[in-house]
Amino acid sequence: MDPIIVKYVDRPELRDPVLIEGLPGVGNVGKIAAEYLKDHLDTKLIVEIFSMYFPPQVLMNGDGTIHLVRNQLWYYENPKGDNDLIFLVGDYQGMSPEGQYELSYKVLEIAKEFGVKTIFTLGGYGTGQLSDKPRVFGAATNLKMVETMKKYGVYFSETEPSGGIVGAAGLLLGLGMELFGMDGVCLMGETSGYFSDPRSSYFVVEIVKRYFKLDLDMEELKFRSDEIGEITSQLREEDQGDTEKKEDLGYIG
Amino acid sequence: MDPIIVKYVDRPELRDPVLIEGLPGVGNVGKIAAEYLKDHLDTKLIVEIFSMYFPPQVLMNGDGTIHLVRNQLWYYENPKGDNDLIFLVGDYQGMSPEGQYELSYKVLEIAKEFGVKTIFTLGGYGTGQLSDKPRVFGAATNLKMVETMKKYGVYFSETEPSGGIVGAAGLLLGLGMELFGMDGVCLMGETSGYFSDPRSSYFVVEIVKRYFKLDLDMEELKFRSDEIGEITSQLREEDQGDTEKKEDLGYIG
Amino acid sequence: MDPIIVKYVDRPELRDPVLIEGLPGVGNVGKIAAEYLKDHLDTKLIVEIFSMYFPPQVLMNGDGTIHLVRNQLWYYENPKGDNDLIFLVGDYQGMSPEGQYELSYKVLEIAKEFGVKTIFTLGGYGTGQLSDKPRVFGAATNLKMVETMKKYGVYFSETEPSGGIVGAAGLLLGLGMELFGMDGVCLMGETSGYFSDPRSSYFVVEIVKRYFKLDLDMEELKFRSDEIGEITSQLREEDQGDTEKKEDLGYIG
Amino acid sequence: MDPIIVKYVDRPELRDPVLIEGLPGVGNVGKIAAEYLKDHLDTKLIVEIFSMYFPPQVLMNGDGTIHLVRNQLWYYENPKGDNDLIFLVGDYQGMSPEGQYELSYKVLEIAKEFGVKTIFTLGGYGTGQLSDKPRVFGAATNLKMVETMKKYGVYFSETEPSGGIVGAAGLLLGLGMELFGMDGVCLMGETSGYFSDPRSSYFVVEIVKRYFKLDLDMEELKFRSDEIGEITSQLREEDQGDTEKKEDLGYIG
Repeated sequence: MDPIIVKYVDRPELRDPVLIEGLPGVGNVGKIAAEYLKDHLDTKLIVEIFSMYFPPQVLMNGDGTIHLVRNQLWYYENPKGDNDLIFLVGDYQGMSPEGQYELSYKVLEIAKEFGVKTIFTLGGYGTGQLSDKPRVFGAATNLKMVETMKKYGVYFSETEPSGGIVGAAGLLLGLGMELFGMDGVCLMGETSGYFSDPRSSYFVVEIVKRYFKLDLDMEELKFRSDEIGEITSQLREEDQGDTEKKEDLGYIG
Repeated sequence: MDPIIVKYVDRPELRDPVLIEGLPGVGNVGKIAAEYLKDHLDTKLIVEIFSMYFPPQVLMNGDGTIHLVRNQLWYYENPKGDNDLIFLVGDYQGMSPEGQYELSYKVLEIAKEFGVKTIFTLGGYGTGQLSDKPRVFGAATNLKMVETMKKYGVYFSETEPSGGIVGAAGLLLGLGMELFGMDGVCLMGETSGYFSDPRSSYFVVEIVKRYFKLDLDMEELKFRSDEIGEITSQLREEDQGDTEKKEDLGYIG
Repeated sequence: MDPIIVKYVDRPELRDPVLIEGLPGVGNVGKIAAEYLKDHLDTKLIVEIFSMYFPPQVLMNGDGTIHLVRNQLWYYENPKGDNDLIFLVGDYQGMSPEGQYELSYKVLEIAKEFGVKTIFTLGGYGTGQLSDKPRVFGAATNLKMVETMKKYGVYFSETEPSGGIVGAAGLLLGLGMELFGMDGVCLMGETSGYFSDPRSSYFVVEIVKRYFKLDLDMEELKFRSDEIGEITSQLREEDQGDTEKKEDLGYIG
Repeated sequence: MDPIIVKYVDRPELRDPVLIEGLPGVGNVGKIAAEYLKDHLDTKLIVEIFSMYFPPQVLMNGDGTIHLVRNQLWYYENPKGDNDLIFLVGDYQGMSPEGQYELSYKVLEIAKEFGVKTIFTLGGYGTGQLSDKPRVFGAATNLKMVETMKKYGVYFSETEPSGGIVGAAGLLLGLGMELFGMDGVCLMGETSGYFSDPRSSYFVVEIVKRYFKLDLDMEELKFRSDEIGEITSQLREEDQGDTEKKEDLGYIG
């Protein structure tokens, strides 16, 4: 068996396309963001990717039928912006370091075929804390991209994320710049990391929307974001309550 | 060394054969079911499969001799039904994700040689609970198969098993449908998952028997099933007793 | 880099040679036994085996110099018996299942070159208990070998070792019989498994010595065995003392 | 994707060059030492090495940009000594045993191209104790090298390090001597192993400096070493204090 099997569904001509990745990861911020974009824009499937680097698993579709775990590329012809978009979404990332490299390399080969020169990877930055208004952290392949993204409100830190970026969100950029001459940026929504966080995804999508001039209805994601916002506020209050109580009891411990 | 070594023992002509898999897994439900079918029908060995994806191990035969761990395919010429059967049984599943994929792919290649178009995979669905009458859950490659199996009493849930199906029972169907144009269903006997469960296997085998119009003596499996049934009833009673006691003592905890 | 690198030092003509394996394992019984045989017979080096399936490690020689971890084959021209001997010894077994299979397969290929038709693998059988007189358990590739080895005092059990034989000691026999048409036996010295056990090795070597009519001085191994014997007796007494004490206090717990 | 990708930046003619390795490891002693040498000598980049044996990760450069994890070779034309130097530095070692072997083998192939016949590997020897004046332990490929390095104050023990040398520092020497006909020595700075230890690196670099007659400014490393020295002294005093207290309280426990 080929370690990675690519099934082409379509071979569209795309206009200066940008690859946008959002696979499962910290708080599923990237996955939620990319799937929201894919689902709420008029996208079409290009490619299905099966691989022995994914878990040996099928998932339930909800009607008694199953599908083999996979990644997919979907494209969107973007009428208002300068770039068509290709979305990388899927059930899993590669399970081993070798699998991660092989899968990212294969995606970059496919992206190159379609003329991709720029990559946006979407992910979460787990801080372990509940944030009132999550920032979007950035990490880019060059300084020009850093400056550009700052204008869109992306926050670049000298030290964070201190462990770098692990997985597809980092590797697509790293391999892309070193071996494929591509540039790009990783957008990381601040998140606690304790649960799936569409609120963090909301702020990430919002930047993507503005950057690519997308005609995108944000309503559903706003709704899910607000839900998380309420839960977060509540948890923060409780937490503060706890902290106060703890302080009251400080003389004991 | 080839990662997978296949030794052909026989090359029978089979009539529209269906592959039926039952390898070790949750509660060994699939393994017990498939081996019962293999042992109580007039089956013959087709193929032996050795592989570096299995553990590096030999097992004792009980008479001082050993055998290298393996999988096997056995066939059964089914006089009453429309399909001959090929059983996949063995000591182990692949140990790594890559091994799982490679082994399932190889089995599908062999199955294709013999004309297999349909796959039944047998397994257990671990609920963590002792069930009075275990249901048989299903997951199929298409809706038609879902409807067909419902008629045989197979239970299809919108949400369960929520983690999908891991291992050969899922992968044979997933790879079979995506890469080999095969259809199929996974039959999962409800089981606690805490011990080998021939009772759950009994209900799985009973469906296979009816579906394929098998001339199969169920007596021995019924006996083993009843044994488990008694143990289960006893444990459930004790458990209920415990729960009652716990409730009595509820004011303490 | 080739995953396994074989350096031939010598290519002797051997008389119906038998492969005798003793690599690190439970209680190091096999390793101690095979190295004792290698060191106390007039053996010569045939082959050095390096591999990425071993740990990435060098070991100290005691004089400030190092050697890369390896396996070796040594041969012995046996004047009194019918078979010359080839000993497989080394620092490690393969670290992964795949590595175990690849290394055993490679050793069997080399063994075949030299005309090996029979394999003795030496190992320990960990019982978790301190035995007064450790038995030597056997597991063979055929019933004739079982009967032969019984005459030499090897103990064959219907059920033990219940988990089969894991690692090179099992795999050389399993792959040897299935893929190379070789026969053989595994001799497993009973051992606690808690420490290196030359006492258990002694009883294994003693059988090998008689079987192959070896002119072998057992004195040094006898000495090391007696040391362990004394420690074992002492520990058993203490343990019995403990048990008695525990029994005295039985009414408390 | 090739498992290891080598990008040549330069192909200098070097004068009897010696490979000096310092990758992350115990106390980061080797990494700090080799990077200090690379940074404080007039070195130039020869080669960049990317690999799927490294973690799937990019690291932050501190200005919002990233780099893919890598190893590098840098060369130094050494005016006073007999040997030019090639430094192996990087973010990570290989993650798996196979990766370790493949990466070391590849580095040795490149080193051979440039005419390397001798290897110095730098590392830490973790003792679990805070040393007042850390020794530099040695392990060499031959006795002549042992004798030579003793003259430079390297300490060779009969028994230490008892577990040998794991990782690139050991493997480059082991593979180098067995497969590439190279000689060499591993210099291991004594370190607690609990933190990054430039003090231990200082003593390692000092030997390298003398051996290769390097025109190297040690000031910055001396400063960092002294800092650690002060912390160590303080911790040792506290520890002694603790020990005394514990002794005072000995009658309690």
